[in-house]
Amino acid sequence: AQRHKTATQGPCNTSKPSMLDFVNKAKWDAWKSLGSVSQEEARQQYVDLISSLVGTEAPAVAAQPTGSTKGFQTLLVSTEDNITTIRLNRPEKKNAITVEMYNELIEALDLAGKDDSVITVITGSGDYYCSGNDLNNFTKIPEGGVEKLAKESGELLRRYVKVYIDFPKPLIGVINGPAVGVSVTLLGLFDVVYATEKATFHTPFSQLGQSPEGCSSYLFPKIMGAAKASEMLLFNKKLTAAQACEVGLVTEVFPESSFQSEVWTRLKAYAKLPRNSLALSKQLIRVVEKEKLHAVNDAEVERLVERWLSDECMQAIMSFFQAKSKL
Amino acid sequence: AQRHKTATQGPCNTSKPSMLDFVNKAKWDAWKSLGSVSQEEARQQYVDLISSLVGTEAPAVAAQPTGSTKGFQTLLVSTEDNITTIRLNRPEKKNAITVEMYNELIEALDLAGKDDSVITVITGSGDYYCSGNDLNNFTKIPEGGVEKLAKESGELLRRYVKVYIDFPKPLIGVINGPAVGVSVTLLGLFDVVYATEKATFHTPFSQLGQSPEGCSSYLFPKIMGAAKASEMLLFNKKLTAAQACEVGLVTEVFPESSFQSEVWTRLKAYAKLPRNSLALSKQLIRVVEKEKLHAVNDAEVERLVERWLSDECMQAIMSFFQAKSKL
Amino acid sequence: AQRHKTATQGPCNTSKPSMLDFVNKAKWDAWKSLGSVSQEEARQQYVDLISSLVGTEAPAVAAQPTGSTKGFQTLLVSTEDNITTIRLNRPEKKNAITVEMYNELIEALDLAGKDDSVITVITGSGDYYCSGNDLNNFTKIPEGGVEKLAKESGELLRRYVKVYIDFPKPLIGVINGPAVGVSVTLLGLFDVVYATEKATFHTPFSQLGQSPEGCSSYLFPKIMGAAKASEMLLFNKKLTAAQACEVGLVTEVFPESSFQSEVWTRLKAYAKLPRNSLALSKQLIRVVEKEKLHAVNDAEVERLVERWLSDECMQAIMSFFQAKSKL
Repeated sequence: AQRHKTATQGPCNTSKPSMLDFVNKAKWDAWKSLGSVSQEEARQQYVDLISSLVGTEAPAVAAQPTGSTKGFQTLLVSTEDNITTIRLNRPEKKNAITVEMYNELIEALDLAGKDDSVITVITGSGDYYCSGNDLNNFTKIPEGGVEKLAKESGELLRRYVKVYIDFPKPLIGVINGPAVGVSVTLLGLFDVVYATEKATFHTPFSQLGQSPEGCSSYLFPKIMGAAKASEMLLFNKKLTAAQACEVGLVTEVFPESSFQSEVWTRLKAYAKLPRNSLALSKQLIRVVEKEKLHAVNDAEVERLVERWLSDECMQAIMSFFQAKSKL
Repeated sequence: AQRHKTATQGPCNTSKPSMLDFVNKAKWDAWKSLGSVSQEEARQQYVDLISSLVGTEAPAVAAQPTGSTKGFQTLLVSTEDNITTIRLNRPEKKNAITVEMYNELIEALDLAGKDDSVITVITGSGDYYCSGNDLNNFTKIPEGGVEKLAKESGELLRRYVKVYIDFPKPLIGVINGPAVGVSVTLLGLFDVVYATEKATFHTPFSQLGQSPEGCSSYLFPKIMGAAKASEMLLFNKKLTAAQACEVGLVTEVFPESSFQSEVWTRLKAYAKLPRNSLALSKQLIRVVEKEKLHAVNDAEVERLVERWLSDECMQAIMSFFQAKSKL
Repeated sequence: AQRHKTATQGPCNTSKPSMLDFVNKAKWDAWKSLGSVSQEEARQQYVDLISSLVGTEAPAVAAQPTGSTKGFQTLLVSTEDNITTIRLNRPEKKNAITVEMYNELIEALDLAGKDDSVITVITGSGDYYCSGNDLNNFTKIPEGGVEKLAKESGELLRRYVKVYIDFPKPLIGVINGPAVGVSVTLLGLFDVVYATEKATFHTPFSQLGQSPEGCSSYLFPKIMGAAKASEMLLFNKKLTAAQACEVGLVTEVFPESSFQSEVWTRLKAYAKLPRNSLALSKQLIRVVEKEKLHAVNDAEVERLVERWLSDECMQAIMSFFQAKSKL
């Protein structure tokens, strides 16, 4: 990473942060120490730096298995009134998706697709719907190094998106607060999306040197046209709930005060409709795009794995943590 | 039908309707008598029940061939100022589409495609644009039984939608009032759709245990995004004219008071434009999707035929007539 | 051309324009003299007429190579702050695109795609963004006659649109005023489109007996649905900037007073984002449609070449100049 930085920008010369903040100072010193090293060394230091930064910023919190009916660690899953609800349950981490959570979501969706519920709902615990990929995911380096990490992360993402593409019954998003990254891009694969007025929709991929996933590179232009999709997917435009509704990413927006009651009243009514008619109609809508969606998913993941291993992405993520640590 | 009902809900235990209404009572008794029978018997009883219900509710009215220039029984068709207008003409039945009307529409569109008019317009007589499929269509059981009825109805629908896909010149909908079912789903195949403010757009497929047709399973998500399309196609959301315009199903909405004059002024101007330029431009827009649209039409019809023969659909239609008879 | 006119409308019987206008009178006499001739003769006279009309209406003005950094005659091209800006620079002709300008745009875009800028911007000098195809292009008849002219024009257009389809980095339109014809249809191939409130969007193809290009026959229905796309592409509906934004053709509209400052502030921020991330993300969005877009471009050009050689188109263009000369 630093090789590129050195070549293009010269050694680190960011102005030193306030000395009052010892934590920040430590990080700044770590960053500064990356002055001039080989690419391999830089990559390792990058990993170490990220680990130390996120270690400080984001301590792993033991998930509370409260109320979970299926024994998940990061989710609350329950079935009632013909509705299976999957609730992202790491509110203290804004429901950021860890590797464990990706795996649990895949399992929970797989079960929900097969159970006898009529519709499936995904929502979040706490103030956030989901803050996207937990960047801690990039810091637990396996034996095979970052290449292996990137490849495994890519395969996990591919499987995760695949479950949404193949989901066999109506899938409804109840967006209870801000949504970021992959939790936004996947909305194109939901059948209905209801949002509180305080939800926002943000996909800051390029800011982190990355590229869009969740089939958004195909579905967002289809939903809202390229002119609006690219502003989100390339230029990090954050949408309000009202804006997301205008462009068609969100079905309807509700006042925060009545959000839960209005939405769940509707969902209970939906869940009384003929089960097979709903499932078969949803599949009818999906089948015409399914092959293309799988191809898009594969292409997006391939590109993203390349991105994760690029100097540009590493630098962008470091800058992100730098900025965060300076706040 | 009852086998499933019996198995899952037990024998009929709906609360008895008001005794004041003798007609309703008769229907309730008929329904109640379906207590516990074999599947074959239930299917026959279902057909008989439907026949009796719709027979009471919806007596066949002789179509008035007033003003028809082509001798159609259910349509008024005329050509003037380079515009061929096809007017659904069963106002007393809210322009519900009978088998005869499907056949006449296919013929009228075929003729309009070949005549020397520049544009073709479809509109309705009376207060409704069209209330969709006439459920009476399901009650005239041929020799081969319901399977044959379903297959024939499917083939008729397939041919009907096909005419819209292949229509060779601009096709404009003048939506003079509420539109239901297939008259809504087909709007995705029109080139321009003008609506009065009092029009509504409703596709209650799942409520009737059915599934979407008219290429809407492909075109509605394309037009308005899946999040809005699924609320209509899966969850029976009824759109106002303004909402239908916002999502792109309708081109423009006009005040009822000036609807006819404003729209026809425009149409007359359109009909003066170069004929071939219009036809060839419309075909250019259509050709890129044509193969896919035919495949979608086939898939939708296949699914719908399965649906018509399902217990779920039979039950839903019975419930519909029940509810209607209780009003 | 006249053969058809004669056959269908009889000899010229337009009412004579005001005698006060000698230029108009001359044109009217030329038109009137086309009374009854063979098809070949009519075609030649048509070409001569057009030449004389546009010769009078639209004298070729020497392009001002002011400030151009790359020596273009019809464009101003510069690179600053990681942004390559291509400015259409025939303000006195409302930035109508001549054959020379088509060729220079192809070259400028080719260079911009390869240079080290992060984003590329297209905008216009003066009050107009672009008034579309310069109709003078149809009047410089080569040795091979109109057939050859049409074929060459088609090939030029095909190559021009191709550059947009294949453009490898974010392409942003800064629409500083009215846009007409091909400058509108191409917007579907831009990644982001910012417009001043005084911009308008007009594609009067059928009025000129022509057909849509720039992949609009595929992309406009995809962006805004067929019902709104056809009103533009078939029936010459002119959109305000706000309307174009509502249907998704434009990303955002700005007040004229702050348009340039607001837009360029954003663009400069965009140009600081990771270069490869942006380029690869844009390519990811484009790749899924690229093959189809090339096929659509080919089909549109083929149809347009046929149109250019049709009597209908010739008559429509003559009518256009007639109308213009009467103003």
